[in-house]
Amino acid sequence: MVIAAPDPFAVMNVVGLLAFAVVGSLRAIDADLDLLGVGVLGVMTALGGGVTRDLLVDSVPVALRSTTDVSVALAGVGVGLAVGRVVGDVTDHSVVLLADAVGLAAFAATGALVAADAGLSAFGVVVLATVTGVGGGLLSDVLLRNVPAVLVEDFYATCALVGGVAFWALASVGVGDGTNAAVCAGLVLGLRLLAIRYDWELPTV
Amino acid sequence: MVIAAPDPFAVMNVVGLLAFAVVGSLRAIDADLDLLGVGVLGVMTALGGGVTRDLLVDSVPVALRSTTDVSVALAGVGVGLAVGRVVGDVTDHSVVLLADAVGLAAFAATGALVAADAGLSAFGVVVLATVTGVGGGLLSDVLLRNVPAVLVEDFYATCALVGGVAFWALASVGVGDGTNAAVCAGLVLGLRLLAIRYDWELPTV
Amino acid sequence: MVIAAPDPFAVMNVVGLLAFAVVGSLRAIDADLDLLGVGVLGVMTALGGGVTRDLLVDSVPVALRSTTDVSVALAGVGVGLAVGRVVGDVTDHSVVLLADAVGLAAFAATGALVAADAGLSAFGVVVLATVTGVGGGLLSDVLLRNVPAVLVEDFYATCALVGGVAFWALASVGVGDGTNAAVCAGLVLGLRLLAIRYDWELPTV
Repeated sequence: MVIAAPDPFAVMNVVGLLAFAVVGSLRAIDADLDLLGVGVLGVMTALGGGVTRDLLVDSVPVALRSTTDVSVALAGVGVGLAVGRVVGDVTDHSVVLLADAVGLAAFAATGALVAADAGLSAFGVVVLATVTGVGGGLLSDVLLRNVPAVLVEDFYATCALVGGVAFWALASVGVGDGTNAAVCAGLVLGLRLLAIRYDWELPTV
Repeated sequence: MVIAAPDPFAVMNVVGLLAFAVVGSLRAIDADLDLLGVGVLGVMTALGGGVTRDLLVDSVPVALRSTTDVSVALAGVGVGLAVGRVVGDVTDHSVVLLADAVGLAAFAATGALVAADAGLSAFGVVVLATVTGVGGGLLSDVLLRNVPAVLVEDFYATCALVGGVAFWALASVGVGDGTNAAVCAGLVLGLRLLAIRYDWELPTV
Repeated sequence: MVIAAPDPFAVMNVVGLLAFAVVGSLRAIDADLDLLGVGVLGVMTALGGGVTRDLLVDSVPVALRSTTDVSVALAGVGVGLAVGRVVGDVTDHSVVLLADAVGLAAFAATGALVAADAGLSAFGVVVLATVTGVGGGLLSDVLLRNVPAVLVEDFYATCALVGGVAFWALASVGVGDGTNAAVCAGLVLGLRLLAIRYDWELPTV
């Protein structure tokens, strides 16, 4: 019996959807939205990056073509609700920061995979990894009227960008999609967690 | 002489454009924008849902291919200006709530029609109905820096979603587009008005 | 030896990217963002209009297909940083207003060129010129949570719209793309600067 290797895109997509649904729903709870508001923001945060990614490469978004994305996002909202009940005040709670870092990493990998698959240049791979990674969080910031993290956190978009560069470099020396996506996501996640842990920042102008 | 039945999409689209142009222009008046700001916000509110709808199914937006959409939106702005002059303070005025409910209903129907026409699954029909219905109002909330209604009103996106489900169910038993769009829009409108009238809400978390 | 005439689209695109990158980075400095925030907002302001333009005509955005757009945007951010260091407080500084007017004019011309090239109607040309012109500034206003200029400045979107009308009129009498783009951009820029200089405005409702 042969067990098929899991599709790297599908794995990263599910991880990212779950993580960002948790982030979005916890942020919504923090903003005192009610149950439906929590669900809507959780789903929008989960889907935002991927829908942007698919529109940019000119295809009908995955989230619209199958039920998987929204179902996974709803499951993530369920997790977020449970977590919110357990931890109480979630503002800047480490679980939000961790889930956000995981979502950033996983979606950056999906962006790089889609860009490579669409035959974009090295450059297109890096841009799409970055945009896909930061898209969901940016949307939730705009909807909740927060200052977008992407503008005030130095090592947020930067982490996704570095992951995109790594993906392209590895792909150009023939590393396969599965390994490559894992390395890209791991690198983004590691960088982001280090940046949070050690308060990395750049000087203001 | 044969009188052609009106195209369900065209009818719903015009109704939605008019309604949301009225909503957008009244909200803009309420925010003390001047004449041009009122026009710009009215047009953007009217076009927002439909442009999003068309981008998601990967086609050049209707609003860009013909003059109808913008012309109708401008007419709606004219109506909004006249209404604003008559009723004075329009904050949460019932005319705004009514027009918004009509726009939500009509655009949800256009979203369902376009999704069905594009061959999307049951699920895609529901998602596109919801996104198209709430798109214009969400855009106007973001531009006016209000808390998006879609996040704080429990029976707003929900109404469009139910309409999308009904459209798909009826389509799957062979009900024609015209009847179906009318039922979908009527259901969304009825639910939304009932929700406003009886203050339906879900518990906060 | 033959010197090829420069491609009107490429010229206008580079001018617009540079100008809006300067605007975005100066606005970011003004909002006390740090170095990376300045870079991110500068790049997003520069790319916003063009990406919207390309999505609307249903193509993969130029900014994703080649490195030119992002490189030019980054160069513009460099200029913005240098200008910011020289002039100090940049709030409503004339250099921001001028760069913004130049970006509006140049991007309106690219929108008209792309629309004409995509075979859109007169109407599509005007809409795409307007949307492309105002897109970047609107995005930066939303991200920095300012009231969008497009809603409160009477002669902002209007200038781009007039430029689009002029482009279409000239194209319809056979004027070539190069001359036409230059006239369109010059007209938008002139109108916008006159509007700023003489405080043109429309009555409030």
